Amino acid sequence: MTTRQPIGVAVVGAGYWGPNLVRNVAATPAMRLRHLCDLDVDRARRVLGEYSIVPATASLDAVLADPEVDAVAVATPAATHHAVVMAALEAGKHVLVEKPLAPTLEEGRELVAAAERRDLVLMLDHTYCYTPAVAHLRGLVRGGELGDLQYLDSVRINLGLVQRDVDVLWDLAPHDLSIFDSILPADVAPVAVSAHGSDPIGAGHACVAHLTIQLSNGSLAHVHVNWLSPTKIRTLVVGGSRRTVVWDDLNPTQRLSVYDRGVDAAIPRQTGAAGAAAHERATVSYRLGDMVAPALPEKEALRAVMEEFAASITEQRAPLTDGRAGLRVLALLESAAASMAEGGAFVPVLDALAPADLALDGATS
Amino acid sequence: MTTRQPIGVAVVGAGYWGPNLVRNVAATPAMRLRHLCDLDVDRARRVLGEYSIVPATASLDAVLADPEVDAVAVATPAATHHAVVMAALEAGKHVLVEKPLAPTLEEGRELVAAAERRDLVLMLDHTYCYTPAVAHLRGLVRGGELGDLQYLDSVRINLGLVQRDVDVLWDLAPHDLSIFDSILPADVAPVAVSAHGSDPIGAGHACVAHLTIQLSNGSLAHVHVNWLSPTKIRTLVVGGSRRTVVWDDLNPTQRLSVYDRGVDAAIPRQTGAAGAAAHERATVSYRLGDMVAPALPEKEALRAVMEEFAASITEQRAPLTDGRAGLRVLALLESAAASMAEGGAFVPVLDALAPADLALDGATS
Amino acid sequence: MTTRQPIGVAVVGAGYWGPNLVRNVAATPAMRLRHLCDLDVDRARRVLGEYSIVPATASLDAVLADPEVDAVAVATPAATHHAVVMAALEAGKHVLVEKPLAPTLEEGRELVAAAERRDLVLMLDHTYCYTPAVAHLRGLVRGGELGDLQYLDSVRINLGLVQRDVDVLWDLAPHDLSIFDSILPADVAPVAVSAHGSDPIGAGHACVAHLTIQLSNGSLAHVHVNWLSPTKIRTLVVGGSRRTVVWDDLNPTQRLSVYDRGVDAAIPRQTGAAGAAAHERATVSYRLGDMVAPALPEKEALRAVMEEFAASITEQRAPLTDGRAGLRVLALLESAAASMAEGGAFVPVLDALAPADLALDGATS
Amino acid sequence: MTTRQPIGVAVVGAGYWGPNLVRNVAATPAMRLRHLCDLDVDRARRVLGEYSIVPATASLDAVLADPEVDAVAVATPAATHHAVVMAALEAGKHVLVEKPLAPTLEEGRELVAAAERRDLVLMLDHTYCYTPAVAHLRGLVRGGELGDLQYLDSVRINLGLVQRDVDVLWDLAPHDLSIFDSILPADVAPVAVSAHGSDPIGAGHACVAHLTIQLSNGSLAHVHVNWLSPTKIRTLVVGGSRRTVVWDDLNPTQRLSVYDRGVDAAIPRQTGAAGAAAHERATVSYRLGDMVAPALPEKEALRAVMEEFAASITEQRAPLTDGRAGLRVLALLESAAASMAEGGAFVPVLDALAPADLALDGATS
Repeated sequence: MTTRQPIGVAVVGAGYWGPNLVRNVAATPAMRLRHLCDLDVDRARRVLGEYSIVPATASLDAVLADPEVDAVAVATPAATHHAVVMAALEAGKHVLVEKPLAPTLEEGRELVAAAERRDLVLMLDHTYCYTPAVAHLRGLVRGGELGDLQYLDSVRINLGLVQRDVDVLWDLAPHDLSIFDSILPADVAPVAVSAHGSDPIGAGHACVAHLTIQLSNGSLAHVHVNWLSPTKIRTLVVGGSRRTVVWDDLNPTQRLSVYDRGVDAAIPRQTGAAGAAAHERATVSYRLGDMVAPALPEKEALRAVMEEFAASITEQRAPLTDGRAGLRVLALLESAAASMAEGGAFVPVLDALAPADLALDGATS
Repeated sequence: MTTRQPIGVAVVGAGYWGPNLVRNVAATPAMRLRHLCDLDVDRARRVLGEYSIVPATASLDAVLADPEVDAVAVATPAATHHAVVMAALEAGKHVLVEKPLAPTLEEGRELVAAAERRDLVLMLDHTYCYTPAVAHLRGLVRGGELGDLQYLDSVRINLGLVQRDVDVLWDLAPHDLSIFDSILPADVAPVAVSAHGSDPIGAGHACVAHLTIQLSNGSLAHVHVNWLSPTKIRTLVVGGSRRTVVWDDLNPTQRLSVYDRGVDAAIPRQTGAAGAAAHERATVSYRLGDMVAPALPEKEALRAVMEEFAASITEQRAPLTDGRAGLRVLALLESAAASMAEGGAFVPVLDALAPADLALDGATS
Repeated sequence: MTTRQPIGVAVVGAGYWGPNLVRNVAATPAMRLRHLCDLDVDRARRVLGEYSIVPATASLDAVLADPEVDAVAVATPAATHHAVVMAALEAGKHVLVEKPLAPTLEEGRELVAAAERRDLVLMLDHTYCYTPAVAHLRGLVRGGELGDLQYLDSVRINLGLVQRDVDVLWDLAPHDLSIFDSILPADVAPVAVSAHGSDPIGAGHACVAHLTIQLSNGSLAHVHVNWLSPTKIRTLVVGGSRRTVVWDDLNPTQRLSVYDRGVDAAIPRQTGAAGAAAHERATVSYRLGDMVAPALPEKEALRAVMEEFAASITEQRAPLTDGRAGLRVLALLESAAASMAEGGAFVPVLDALAPADLALDGATS
Repeated sequence: MTTRQPIGVAVVGAGYWGPNLVRNVAATPAMRLRHLCDLDVDRARRVLGEYSIVPATASLDAVLADPEVDAVAVATPAATHHAVVMAALEAGKHVLVEKPLAPTLEEGRELVAAAERRDLVLMLDHTYCYTPAVAHLRGLVRGGELGDLQYLDSVRINLGLVQRDVDVLWDLAPHDLSIFDSILPADVAPVAVSAHGSDPIGAGHACVAHLTIQLSNGSLAHVHVNWLSPTKIRTLVVGGSRRTVVWDDLNPTQRLSVYDRGVDAAIPRQTGAAGAAAHERATVSYRLGDMVAPALPEKEALRAVMEEFAASITEQRAPLTDGRAGLRVLALLESAAASMAEGGAFVPVLDALAPADLALDGATS
């Protein structure tokens, strides 16, 4: 593959998200849209519209056999991801795939191993990670401007489409977990997770869920996902010892608010009897400084996804949200599901990369 | 006590909340403010100001010995509640006491038993339960306008005063739990509770906490309390099968929003194999009706607290938030603390009224 | 023209608004997009993109000579409207044109007269009039639910594109004036207008302007337009004797709020000495009822514009926002400009339809 | 008068605002509350409550004859201000008076002259000027941080108490005009004013009004006051060439927002033919920088009013909002009323300090 030519891309899946992929591939100069593939070829044709020269097809085999197709963007149901992505990788195509990577961690590991063996890009469409707000937030957290992380709190609730095949945790929490994954500093990782869910409408699985994640630095991250809320909320608070940031995705004029406000205990953290004694003498102080809402560019996140996908192919490097990021999200989801089944006690987070057969020395990661 | 005369009231405690009690007792026609008592008598004098004829005193004994004192309003630290309230009851005074009733459920039970033995009013100052918004919400829930309860979600976060003696759960959650207690229908009660907390600033106890409560009808109630949030949020969502209500206490022009929005599964709730089969055929439907923000009176909640206290004394009946309501809140707090200590698994909610020595046949309850 | 075939449409102008017309014509089943025409044919090609079969052209003549073109949607600069629209009408094409209809009332009258002589549809793309919110509001006002109109107040401010050729009044106020025109009841019309403007940045014309319009029922309508505001506000309040509606176009979850709140004077309106005497005895009463936020469909307004354009062609009737509505807006703009030039005193609103040579008996209006 | 003793203060008027004066005088250490005076002595007694030692009286003469009264705070109806304030001044008392200073500019001038002749403090209770937000805003404007003033826009609307004796202009606009007066730099003054009003409910005078003020630097200030709005808005935008500030008095968590956003024309302001030619070459640039919400102290404005009143008495200096500030507000109100009566054309702002008999060399100003 030469990198000077546009990257030929086929979109697979013309359902809810597929049209967005089609539009953004078409608008990305480094790409050329070659096919739209869906088992329901009429649906694919309707998505393309009557004025498009892009061919619609029901045959994935034909798409994968096309030498002008360098990469595949997959927006089919999660249950099909393993088969579709594996076929694409085996045909030597780079793959961009909707979240979650696969319905199980085990299947996800197989896909990552397959991609790494072939030096192919396997990228997760963790769209929120590419918003200007999250990109800015990542810089603040990883650049140390927030100080030590104290807590994360994510709320993602609205009157959502109740899914038949997955519960609200698997449907919505991948957004929050992938955002966490993309902003946490290298030395802070999830170690245990507790989850509670309920199904008040009799849908057959949880429609409301709360996740609590223990991080390796001792702080907690919490996620509230809910399909039944009459109001729509999408906020994330990242509390730090120096600054606290509130991201409100539904406030287009002030998505990020960086507060120089907080509480400090005037003693160092200690444990045991010395710590207890120190606490008795502790004084708490409050910072009540200004709030700054940084100017952010207006850019569609999916456009940035496509640019990162194209760049990682061209530069033969792992994308920001590579397959291993997808595995880390799957590991959290499986651990959360286990906690929910067990009544909500904390369970350790599964190791995303085990077992040993995963190629840990893969060139792309 | 004749009921035609104003009820003589002494306020005990001139700290954070005491001045509010003083002001509202003084403004209530059915009451007459007789004393303000605080160990720091200068503080009591400063609260009264230089133009007041009300006497300040450091002697609780003198206050309780005054035959013109019919009732005592207690706003001292929680650790002193048992001693102060018990002394007042033993002196034959009716008592209004700040939340929580006592530092332990056991001490609380002793106070309730003492009050019931003497046919004295023991009322909790669960102030929020007397706001016009919660009063309206109670009517909607108990009147059946919301249909079946599906979930409750309460958020109470802001940059709060980090307490030395209690964690955030004991400091803030009594508000949420007492509101739940005052609006839940008679046939829905908490059965188990899970709690997670963290102390990211090294305060010595949890500054951020999440409670998940299993209700007897199978739904979940969740509470998020946080002393460290740079933004202040006080919202409660009560989801029902017919309507969902959002209470936003910080939006004075639209505190309650009643949504005719929701999700319905088109099948009755079933369990077991028949249920699973039914779910496969289930279709989900959405209601997207109007939202109504009911007009609410503007009234200070603490004024209504005083009116209820006076009325329950005069009418010799239990107040809306009687000692038993205080015990139910304590039972939830102790169970939550047990869950937090055990890693967050669900623990059954303690029986508020056990053991057997509590006078269950008390005339006032 | 048969009405069973899709209506062949050419879009003229590929600048700021043209791409929206292209997208919505293409998505409207009753239409078929035949050409995109722009003097800068490369710009037209970029708008269409590399996957489109729609031809781009720089020749308006060629477009108008195409018998498959039944109608033309014009999004060129206002200064060119007279020439482009007149050419299209003379070629027998129906026309949808961006606001304002023409740079002067006189030119606008010529276009309306030309369209009426030929029984062609001449429709203004007053997009806001086709939003679900304005459509609902129109029903409330004209259906009498608001009672007597008491005042209108429209604010449309943000950091906008400072135009070179027109001031903020001609750029933004057509939106507000066309909305007024589309919701006012038949018996209420503008009679005089006062306007103030300022140019604090030295742009050469007003960047901030206030319009006050006297309506025939004695009430006032006010418009505030501003290119320099750091915050974006788009609100309209329509006050009535029975209800008052607030439209907030930037609040997607509650665009319309219908308040059962208001003030009533308890005496009938009288004038002269009797009135003065009555006022002395007047008592004012307040209604403080509920607020209702009606459920509104989510629909792109420009899609509804296209549907109305297609329907008016097919049904051979005037559209909701016909050329005469465009003239009424122009008459207000010219009168406002005259007031601004004269120091802001009220000037009578020009007669939109005079002089006499306008065909008042046109079949389509 | 010695300054070491507390200043003896009598409050005159126990109606809507009087209780606030009583409470704040009592809470100010530098003051001692001596009397509450109202023609309706029972109303005065109710305001004081049954626990106060402060005497209530109906006799202004007795109050003014009391040598322990150094100063009088007047909250009677505007129509009585001239008589009450003049009597107090003639008795040698300093005066704090509610806005407006007097019902007419002429009466106001007499009061200012009387105070200046006697070297007594005459202070207007322009409460908003003492809020932390306006104090901060004043510093930004006068410190040059906003650059050149470009526009002011003030909105003060809600369902307000319809007054019998004054229209909405005289009732509400004094707030906005006094704020303008307290923040405008020394070299920017109002030169002309236009006003429109309407009375849609038949109250006998305007219930909705719009003021447009020409400032001496060529920019406009606009005020919208409205008693009939179902929603409450209190915002002020101050646009500058370097920064723009939005004050939202009803947003307690973010009252001030300072935007580094704006529009610049790239050419200097010129007039005449050279200017027109320059405009043709002008390019407009946009700044889209961060927004900062400065931390502000929480303090009741009326407490700061009392402190300034006490300090100006003690230090024998003019207060921030002295009688002359009151005259400037009256001059604007009278000019606005004249414009409204004349159909809304601009009228020059009256000279606050003319005629010549006003003591321009008064020591306190």
